Amino acid sequence: MKKSLIALAVLAAAGAASAQSSVTLFGIVDATYAYGKGEGVGGSKKSQLTNSGYNSSRLGFRGTEDLGGGMSASFWLEAGVNNDNGAGSATNTNNQATGGAVAGIGGGQGLTFNRRSTVSLAGGWGELRLGRDYTPQFFNLTVFDPFGTNGVGTTQTLNSIGSAGAQPTGVVVVPTAVRASNSIGYFLPGNIGGFYGQAQYYMGENNDNSTLTVGTVTRNTKSDGTGGGFRVGYAAGPFNVAFSMSKTNYAFGDVEQNNVGGQWDFGFAKLMGQYSFDSIGTATAGDVDGKGWLIGGLIPVGAGEIRLSYSTYEYDIGTKPEIKKFAIGYVHNLSKRTALYTTYARLDNSGGASQALNGATTAANTKSDGFDIGIRHSF
Amino acid sequence: MKKSLIALAVLAAAGAASAQSSVTLFGIVDATYAYGKGEGVGGSKKSQLTNSGYNSSRLGFRGTEDLGGGMSASFWLEAGVNNDNGAGSATNTNNQATGGAVAGIGGGQGLTFNRRSTVSLAGGWGELRLGRDYTPQFFNLTVFDPFGTNGVGTTQTLNSIGSAGAQPTGVVVVPTAVRASNSIGYFLPGNIGGFYGQAQYYMGENNDNSTLTVGTVTRNTKSDGTGGGFRVGYAAGPFNVAFSMSKTNYAFGDVEQNNVGGQWDFGFAKLMGQYSFDSIGTATAGDVDGKGWLIGGLIPVGAGEIRLSYSTYEYDIGTKPEIKKFAIGYVHNLSKRTALYTTYARLDNSGGASQALNGATTAANTKSDGFDIGIRHSF
Amino acid sequence: MKKSLIALAVLAAAGAASAQSSVTLFGIVDATYAYGKGEGVGGSKKSQLTNSGYNSSRLGFRGTEDLGGGMSASFWLEAGVNNDNGAGSATNTNNQATGGAVAGIGGGQGLTFNRRSTVSLAGGWGELRLGRDYTPQFFNLTVFDPFGTNGVGTTQTLNSIGSAGAQPTGVVVVPTAVRASNSIGYFLPGNIGGFYGQAQYYMGENNDNSTLTVGTVTRNTKSDGTGGGFRVGYAAGPFNVAFSMSKTNYAFGDVEQNNVGGQWDFGFAKLMGQYSFDSIGTATAGDVDGKGWLIGGLIPVGAGEIRLSYSTYEYDIGTKPEIKKFAIGYVHNLSKRTALYTTYARLDNSGGASQALNGATTAANTKSDGFDIGIRHSF
Repeated sequence: MKKSLIALAVLAAAGAASAQSSVTLFGIVDATYAYGKGEGVGGSKKSQLTNSGYNSSRLGFRGTEDLGGGMSASFWLEAGVNNDNGAGSATNTNNQATGGAVAGIGGGQGLTFNRRSTVSLAGGWGELRLGRDYTPQFFNLTVFDPFGTNGVGTTQTLNSIGSAGAQPTGVVVVPTAVRASNSIGYFLPGNIGGFYGQAQYYMGENNDNSTLTVGTVTRNTKSDGTGGGFRVGYAAGPFNVAFSMSKTNYAFGDVEQNNVGGQWDFGFAKLMGQYSFDSIGTATAGDVDGKGWLIGGLIPVGAGEIRLSYSTYEYDIGTKPEIKKFAIGYVHNLSKRTALYTTYARLDNSGGASQALNGATTAANTKSDGFDIGIRHSF
Repeated sequence: MKKSLIALAVLAAAGAASAQSSVTLFGIVDATYAYGKGEGVGGSKKSQLTNSGYNSSRLGFRGTEDLGGGMSASFWLEAGVNNDNGAGSATNTNNQATGGAVAGIGGGQGLTFNRRSTVSLAGGWGELRLGRDYTPQFFNLTVFDPFGTNGVGTTQTLNSIGSAGAQPTGVVVVPTAVRASNSIGYFLPGNIGGFYGQAQYYMGENNDNSTLTVGTVTRNTKSDGTGGGFRVGYAAGPFNVAFSMSKTNYAFGDVEQNNVGGQWDFGFAKLMGQYSFDSIGTATAGDVDGKGWLIGGLIPVGAGEIRLSYSTYEYDIGTKPEIKKFAIGYVHNLSKRTALYTTYARLDNSGGASQALNGATTAANTKSDGFDIGIRHSF
Repeated sequence: MKKSLIALAVLAAAGAASAQSSVTLFGIVDATYAYGKGEGVGGSKKSQLTNSGYNSSRLGFRGTEDLGGGMSASFWLEAGVNNDNGAGSATNTNNQATGGAVAGIGGGQGLTFNRRSTVSLAGGWGELRLGRDYTPQFFNLTVFDPFGTNGVGTTQTLNSIGSAGAQPTGVVVVPTAVRASNSIGYFLPGNIGGFYGQAQYYMGENNDNSTLTVGTVTRNTKSDGTGGGFRVGYAAGPFNVAFSMSKTNYAFGDVEQNNVGGQWDFGFAKLMGQYSFDSIGTATAGDVDGKGWLIGGLIPVGAGEIRLSYSTYEYDIGTKPEIKKFAIGYVHNLSKRTALYTTYARLDNSGGASQALNGATTAANTKSDGFDIGIRHSF
């Protein structure tokens, strides 16, 4: 998110009230060579020129209008961009499996403002924000991850619940692990003695007589995809800590996602940690608990930064599949906008887990490693 | 369409001739909480955080080049934006059912310049415009609707022919009720004593040996989706009236859409009315006539405006399904760019009709009501 | 590519190093009436209002950051736009048939940065470019085609290998004939005595245990879509010549695309020529050789230009299908940004070929003709 901004001059069409108004075109183009390797039967290697190894590639438009009296209105439209092939990124329209990307249109996936599309009213009382946005339960996972949940080093506390392929049988990817559509969010103002916080409610938008049948069981799904969460934190000097809880309703198993994270900036290094404790309802095995943690840090080195983390996630089901990941990386800043980076990660599956890095495949209970090497340019 | 514009300075790459050239980035982000309720067997309720309750959400790019001698060239690329979830809006490539959105890609629908994508040449003789644009037959329906064909209050003269779900069995949604692709349009210049007008021809682009078989009947469809229309009007002082006719060819039933609308601005209120008389060919029941009307008005109140309308539409087929709608709303302008609004509407089905508001469902011959409450921010 | 550019002022967020930085919004909107006619059994005519008859319609964002010391970073995001209907254009994510557009989503195809999406580092040593870009093997076909591979006059040396419908049975469209995704490109610096050149490597990104079965044969496809090419040229005064070779791997038949092209500017006319010799592997008929050539020219006439070409392509398989095309056109510049144009072309199929122009269809071994008449506006 370190980026310089482009501001466009505004014609004073709305008179004096728009004196402080602006519209900004912004973006990131991050390209990375990514290599992944798996082991055992079915294990494979993969080489890619892909994107977002350090920061998520995007193109966005945002602006603010000063309404006077301390009030402002603003908008934010931000699209994910797969700059290795030009495709856009899919959004999820209803916070349910049915609202996501459709298999098979990958080649033609057009741009959507999947990353954020909101309109806000703000004042001394805080900010009211409507639309598609990050969920509160996501922030601790990314803010307190030395790798910012991008690239091969992404914390396992997110990867295990938010990425396809890392779940035990019957456990689904959590649609609202990162973002939610149809949300109404509230953010505390910025000036309350180090405390910060937000709450969000989001709608699944099903009709109230909707039903879903799994096997021989039919249930009403009017609340599927509807949920909410909050996050509260405190930051002062070198210290920053935050806590988040959330719940999303699904007729065949609610999802609860909770976590706490923090960091201490020692100057010569920034130490980070996080702990997640989740519960994911399944149609076949009831509520499955999952928990994970991360410890890591950032070490400034001249114009660059060393990044380190160790993270784990375990599901409390059957053979208790667990994944442990170690990641180390280096970012070299050519300027505030342009950086070169590389990350190496190694992942250890046990309890039947079989996740692999960077698109490789690996046998259950084996290791996978991979690396990224790339360039991030923001504008 | 009340919006302030962002103008970008142009580098004089084309020399003096581009002195008056400009490119404009513009848009609207309109978010609304929408509630709808139906009645009877199969009736349901729905809650949504959706978009475009007051003005259609959009992101656009447009510009004009002064060619000298009173001539100019211009372009306009405008995309619909579902800012509640970040998705784009589908276009229709051939003015036929086959050219529209494909069921099932809603989650991933990318941005298209579905609202308008045109290039124009203009001079003292008027404007020649090529591409995707509004049809002439749409304007009276929206210009003389107090709700501007947006949100729960949208006039029934449009809703009944342009929205899926409001038609009797066998009657299709009219693909060119609002816009047409592949069009060649001509607009009268703006300075001819209060008269205004436009004509448009659009192509379905089928090969001349194309055929379609319905049941046991096979017909040549070379002209399917090809058609045209015109609109002429007169505006002077408080008075504005316009008339439009159109015809679009389909092998299994042409569509004729005709309407007249007008308004009188009394100062303390603006009175509006419109009358539509359409004919929609069907494969099974021949040409089905439809007709409707609206009466409504806008009443300025301080920084706001009260909006009122009563509209109806009836199909002359079988039990003569008819829908009557009453709508009342209020818009409060926080600035020229930002407004809060709410609308309540109640719809009365008879003759077998079963339309419902805001995504709800209702039984035949029952009522449905709903409301919007939202914010519109333009840039 | 004659276009004036819009430059946005940059806030000096990155300090002095960004002094020469800029972001540019650019595009082309080119609309054309296109008519095509075929002959014989199954022959048909087609009328369209389509796009890109002179230059490819697009919307793009690009920018450069001065990194100091002769180095710079830059990005380029450029989307194809079907401005006749507002749709975007599909990309290809993996340089294979599976990565392209999916049949049936034409109506809803969203914008993708299919034309180019790259990030670059450049210095005195040249430019390193990552992402989706033109392939080196494409440039001679377009640079030395008087019609710039746009519209009904497009050289047959590209049409035969890059457009669906022009290939003999069993021969596929070459996915990398124009662009490749996941590419790493290198460009020579601009100041080496008239010589220029580039090399590119692109990845298909299959897992190394991927397989494909055709009939009873199963092969490993780990390298499918992976390949590369280079182009070297020399330009001095009126003279310009370049040579290109490339190879892309596919388990059931590699594709080799090679060509040479040149031009001589006599002042009163620019003479152009090109020669292609390709080899396209097939699953059923082994490697099929194809070869073609073009001769043509551009003749300046006042504010306009006459364009002429004769091109051919022949596949060395079975009855040796061959296509010969003659094209003549005229472009009239209203300004540097806006032009009117028309092109007429006639195509002669033999040896069983049955290609037709502008969307028409024609019987094998018959002729097809067509024309474009349109306007190109750039910004």
